[in-house]
Amino acid sequence: MQLLWLSLLPCLYLASLCSAEQGLEFPSFDGKDRVLHINERNYKKALKRFDMLCLLYHEPQPAHKGRQKQLQMTELVLELTAQVLEDKDIGFGMVDSQKDAKVAKKLGLEEEGSLYIFKDDRVIEFDGEFSADTLVEFLLDVLEDPVELISNPMELRAFERMEEDIRLIGYFKGEDSCESVYAIACIMRWPVRFYTTSVMDKLCVVMQTAKHLSLKMNEVNFYEPFMEEPAILPGRQLSEMEIVEFVHQHKRATLRKLRAEDMFETWEDNLDGIHIVAFAEEEDPDGYEFLEILKDVARDNTNNPELSIVWIDPDDFPLLTTYWEKTFKVNLFKPQIGVVNVTDADSVWLDMSNDEDLPTAEELEDWIEDVLSGKVNTEDDDDVKDDYDGVDREDRHHGDDHDDHGDDYDDHDDSD
Amino acid sequence: MQLLWLSLLPCLYLASLCSAEQGLEFPSFDGKDRVLHINERNYKKALKRFDMLCLLYHEPQPAHKGRQKQLQMTELVLELTAQVLEDKDIGFGMVDSQKDAKVAKKLGLEEEGSLYIFKDDRVIEFDGEFSADTLVEFLLDVLEDPVELISNPMELRAFERMEEDIRLIGYFKGEDSCESVYAIACIMRWPVRFYTTSVMDKLCVVMQTAKHLSLKMNEVNFYEPFMEEPAILPGRQLSEMEIVEFVHQHKRATLRKLRAEDMFETWEDNLDGIHIVAFAEEEDPDGYEFLEILKDVARDNTNNPELSIVWIDPDDFPLLTTYWEKTFKVNLFKPQIGVVNVTDADSVWLDMSNDEDLPTAEELEDWIEDVLSGKVNTEDDDDVKDDYDGVDREDRHHGDDHDDHGDDYDDHDDSD
Repeated sequence: MQLLWLSLLPCLYLASLCSAEQGLEFPSFDGKDRVLHINERNYKKALKRFDMLCLLYHEPQPAHKGRQKQLQMTELVLELTAQVLEDKDIGFGMVDSQKDAKVAKKLGLEEEGSLYIFKDDRVIEFDGEFSADTLVEFLLDVLEDPVELISNPMELRAFERMEEDIRLIGYFKGEDSCESVYAIACIMRWPVRFYTTSVMDKLCVVMQTAKHLSLKMNEVNFYEPFMEEPAILPGRQLSEMEIVEFVHQHKRATLRKLRAEDMFETWEDNLDGIHIVAFAEEEDPDGYEFLEILKDVARDNTNNPELSIVWIDPDDFPLLTTYWEKTFKVNLFKPQIGVVNVTDADSVWLDMSNDEDLPTAEELEDWIEDVLSGKVNTEDDDDVKDDYDGVDREDRHHGDDHDDHGDDYDDHDDSD
Repeated sequence: MQLLWLSLLPCLYLASLCSAEQGLEFPSFDGKDRVLHINERNYKKALKRFDMLCLLYHEPQPAHKGRQKQLQMTELVLELTAQVLEDKDIGFGMVDSQKDAKVAKKLGLEEEGSLYIFKDDRVIEFDGEFSADTLVEFLLDVLEDPVELISNPMELRAFERMEEDIRLIGYFKGEDSCESVYAIACIMRWPVRFYTTSVMDKLCVVMQTAKHLSLKMNEVNFYEPFMEEPAILPGRQLSEMEIVEFVHQHKRATLRKLRAEDMFETWEDNLDGIHIVAFAEEEDPDGYEFLEILKDVARDNTNNPELSIVWIDPDDFPLLTTYWEKTFKVNLFKPQIGVVNVTDADSVWLDMSNDEDLPTAEELEDWIEDVLSGKVNTEDDDDVKDDYDGVDREDRHHGDDHDDHGDDYDDHDDSD
């Protein structure tokens, strides 16, 4: 347990320098064991004892020293998380996939290395970056009230700003108190949150602002990320199952942001081993502009089930930025869009070297069409390195007359 | 160096689980020493060799084992940062405040534990969270082109969205190329960035959109964070010194956000040992609404040099959230505003327990006035615990007739 304390020292070190000022002390591990080793004898008691139980389903104790330490460090991240959240009535445990196979089966644990969160008879699988920051933020979100009451135009604006998330919104007439609205949501047996999809997704309940959204009583609207127009869930008095199923069907958004809390889940959900990946810094004027173009493209193609673009803001992943630059051979100080083969990280990128002109939405759509039809792919350039421009002009689907800006691609060879 | 590798394993561990997919591999320390030990013999060479040199000015090797390990871990964070940024031509070094006192004096290093960044004859002091994430993000920002060219309405919108930062904007007629605009900025001897204030602050150059901002040629506008109206820097053909001085004078914004990259700098810049601190989650409807009210208050009081509110979004500091809840005895799932004494972290908070009604801007202003006049302070409640409501009603500055919502304060005793 000593090790974790060490791994936190960088924070402590500088924190201690401003010892004249109090109020920004990063936590250091106190050495107390809080993570339980879950087995057949204690799992029921653990489920009962805590409001929320987080179980790490892990590989058996490995023989390899390096992997032993990995497992130890993972446990230490859990220990710190447990310490930080000590007052929140959350239990933490480890389940060995070999020794505790029976318990794992009973609890429905499947993916080694995943963290399973049990709360209110639901199970949430955490498949994001396994750091104390990300975990604590995720678990605090799970603890938060899942129903947001939107009761004035300002709160409606906040709802409209959350365009990165899947959002559900309904209009219910209840008493004038939060409790009653919450009760209505519960009585209707709606999921407290769409735990099965992602914990970030909220069921928003509108009281007084329904007219701004042209919502009808008891109707539920579904907002895909970055879409301005909602989809209306068919039927009224929907059951929990119907809503969950609808969300599952519409879960893979046309444009979705890579987030630390579910990055591996998103990456695993590729289309035939391929991701269309766009890098854009939202805080950068160029990046912002490119993102707006991407949103236009996504809105135009929201009904195409074959299309899903993963938007990565490099600012969210500082430790991965130079790795991506090396692996994909792109400059991430500028916006980029390309195709990544997730099997070997081979990639091909749209040439946007003309700094002043980002591609138009139409040019991007043409390129995407070429990707989806297989004309632009990560394999062709491996053979023909020098003069391939990514598209056979005579084979173009559209013979339209816009300029050829979007037709030239970088031909990166990532076979090294 | 083994230790750092261990400290990164949590990331590796889960990353390795999705080994079927490539493209999201977090870096692990490779054990290679990249951080130099800077002394009188090698400092000039180091300054010459790298585009950018980052020097950690540290305390002498401590006798205490715990502090020895702290220093070691700090070095390891630097090592990982150096590895991640290996291709960026950045040098990293350590300077011992005792052994290398002469070098430190020559280089102007003053604060033990601070990281000093040398670039283009300027020095930037990093006084933020000392983690590899934050450091890498910060240094990548320093490397980015400091001049942003705003050339269309979309990019102007991006500029307007960056309300959290200090922004400078000027209108120059140059050639139609980025190079010439950049050259103009340099020829005018303007700071490439306002390194002396914060690296996040950019000099924006407007080409074609000047009319939207009613900018005059060669004029420079200064935007304080969260302000809609800019201040115009007096005079034309301003020198670098004049601009830097103006920025320094206006640096302490009426409302400023706590950011990982300069959190300790902000916290040290308190007013007589006191901070007015507002907690609000921007992604939460309530938090968003409260923040909008705060912005109104800040805009109304932007000319009051006595007032500076530190806004903390708990989402940005997951590891500190429960620490703050315990230290300040507040519930951070809801917006909060209070006064914090940075000497002992004693605090007093505005009672906003009525969930449905956030205070109005006027009520907040009244409360702030009571804080500034000393009527609301962190000391009084330590003596009178039971019935103090934070204000003597008969002594109120304003006898106006709005309701008393803002007049009741929690009386927390943090003397434990």
